[in-house]
Amino acid sequence: MPRVSTDQLAARRRQIMDGARSCFGDHGYEGATVRRLEQYTGLSRGAIFHYFRDKEALFLALAEQDATRMADVVAEQGLVQVMRDLLDAARGTDAGEHVSDRSWLGTRLEVSRRLRTDPEFRARWQEHSGGLTAATRARLERQAAAGALRDDVGVPVLARYLELVLEGLVSHLAMGLPADDLDEVLDVVENGVRAAGRTP
Amino acid sequence: MPRVSTDQLAARRRQIMDGARSCFGDHGYEGATVRRLEQYTGLSRGAIFHYFRDKEALFLALAEQDATRMADVVAEQGLVQVMRDLLDAARGTDAGEHVSDRSWLGTRLEVSRRLRTDPEFRARWQEHSGGLTAATRARLERQAAAGALRDDVGVPVLARYLELVLEGLVSHLAMGLPADDLDEVLDVVENGVRAAGRTP
Repeated sequence: MPRVSTDQLAARRRQIMDGARSCFGDHGYEGATVRRLEQYTGLSRGAIFHYFRDKEALFLALAEQDATRMADVVAEQGLVQVMRDLLDAARGTDAGEHVSDRSWLGTRLEVSRRLRTDPEFRARWQEHSGGLTAATRARLERQAAAGALRDDVGVPVLARYLELVLEGLVSHLAMGLPADDLDEVLDVVENGVRAAGRTP
Repeated sequence: MPRVSTDQLAARRRQIMDGARSCFGDHGYEGATVRRLEQYTGLSRGAIFHYFRDKEALFLALAEQDATRMADVVAEQGLVQVMRDLLDAARGTDAGEHVSDRSWLGTRLEVSRRLRTDPEFRARWQEHSGGLTAATRARLERQAAAGALRDDVGVPVLARYLELVLEGLVSHLAMGLPADDLDEVLDVVENGVRAAGRTP
């Protein structure tokens, strides 16, 4: 094998992840066979599994990529903005397209049985998406310190509340249910964590 | 075939649904083969498909049974109580055991791809769970008329808000994530739809 630069390695890794994301989206977790992963990535199985130990590792890397991208938005604009981006993407505008393609969200739901029945897989999945939880809490702590949050409920509870709504939204969109009437719902969620009297 | 009474027909139908629910829970939608459905129900495929056209009809009948049971609780105690029952059941106490067994909830998530890609199936699924939406709106309308609800947001928005949180909870529990720290989150949800100044 010829020597390749770090840039080339990163580009190859990205190529595999982009192809795998589409493949999972089109065929689901079980349906994303090695042959199909080869077709979608344009690479041999040898090349793919040089970068990722197995299909599970590839799936978890995509989940982590989502969590990292979402965490960046959370740090700047909060978890409700992540939800608004998901809504926009479900409507076909391009914000947050990578994390919110409904086919890919559906793949996440499909692995629910695995998550439920395989504690080791669940632990790994939680670890890979832990950055989002940390970012959500950190932002809420900053808002609380600035007096912008309601103070009758602790930050950990508010963080879990927002995450639960996010889970609902992911599930809703992944099932292809209508996205056009949820803006006002997200307003209710957003105002629900604010200090009384604070305008949006 | 000997003539059977209406009671016997209903009992047979119930026997099939109870067995099928466990079978879907243990093996998922795809894994619930006709052979396994026979084992779990104790009946032949001929008997099973005398009552239900196919596996899909059986699955949808179970979804409708859930929706009907939940709608009964909603009418009396509201959608947040449905969520509290789901939490209790996830913790192993027995409230609402039928609708909230996490294995069965997981099966619901597994069909997400089907829901997303098959508009006809989605329409049938929404029809079968429409009773819950109707019950939620009806109860909220009654509460609004009694002045118990916040009045800055319309009832349809509040209904969709509560349903979105329910979807999040179903997804959360179906994935086997912790249920022990969500009571306070549901308090936030419940207080979020109330008129200001109303105590729980």
